[in-house]
Amino acid sequence: MSTTPATPGTTVLAPEIAARLKRTEDGLLPAIAQQYDTGEVLMLGWMDDEALHRTLTTGRCTYWSRSRREYWVKGDTSGHAQAVKSVALDCDGDTLLVKVDQTGAACHTGDRTCFDADVLPLA
Amino acid sequence: MSTTPATPGTTVLAPEIAARLKRTEDGLLPAIAQQYDTGEVLMLGWMDDEALHRTLTTGRCTYWSRSRREYWVKGDTSGHAQAVKSVALDCDGDTLLVKVDQTGAACHTGDRTCFDADVLPLA
Repeated sequence: MSTTPATPGTTVLAPEIAARLKRTEDGLLPAIAQQYDTGEVLMLGWMDDEALHRTLTTGRCTYWSRSRREYWVKGDTSGHAQAVKSVALDCDGDTLLVKVDQTGAACHTGDRTCFDADVLPLA
Repeated sequence: MSTTPATPGTTVLAPEIAARLKRTEDGLLPAIAQQYDTGEVLMLGWMDDEALHRTLTTGRCTYWSRSRREYWVKGDTSGHAQAVKSVALDCDGDTLLVKVDQTGAACHTGDRTCFDADVLPLA
């Protein structure tokens, strides 16, 4: 099992897409998951080329877990899967927006989104 | 003018907030800007402690520009400002969701959002 993100050019991600990606030093892009119909921002995960390839081709959101150092198909352990509706690359090529249909809670805490619990005070 | 993000603990960001942040090695957190009423995901920027402090206290979204190595008040040059409605920290403390009221286009290309132009093909 790989413990590092895929080196660019070593996966079967379409070369014309791979050529447009601007990755962090770790070879990753932040991926924003948004509920496609309500617009809720659910979570932010990270994808390398291979995770993006799997997300585009399997219909299920796949991330690279920076803490566990492995691919992570959202919902495989929790059942809280994300069915992929669309994937867009931003104008700089360094961020992904994935519109999904989220089953149940997106957050491991049981909250619908990872942003529900900690609203910061405005001055 | 500083050319590096603020070192944690050296800004006036409230200590109880600063203590919960999990930053990249560069001292930054990704910040998702979302239009507060329509739910559109507008862009993703980066904030250090000082940019977050300014965002929470000035009513205007302030980012750290990784390319220009400086603080960047969204709209100061373009007029396309972001009025801050709310700021939330995610469950891991490593991502911010900023709900804003965006004036005009969020994207430097003139598109409403940075994700409008490049939808990737699903297999």
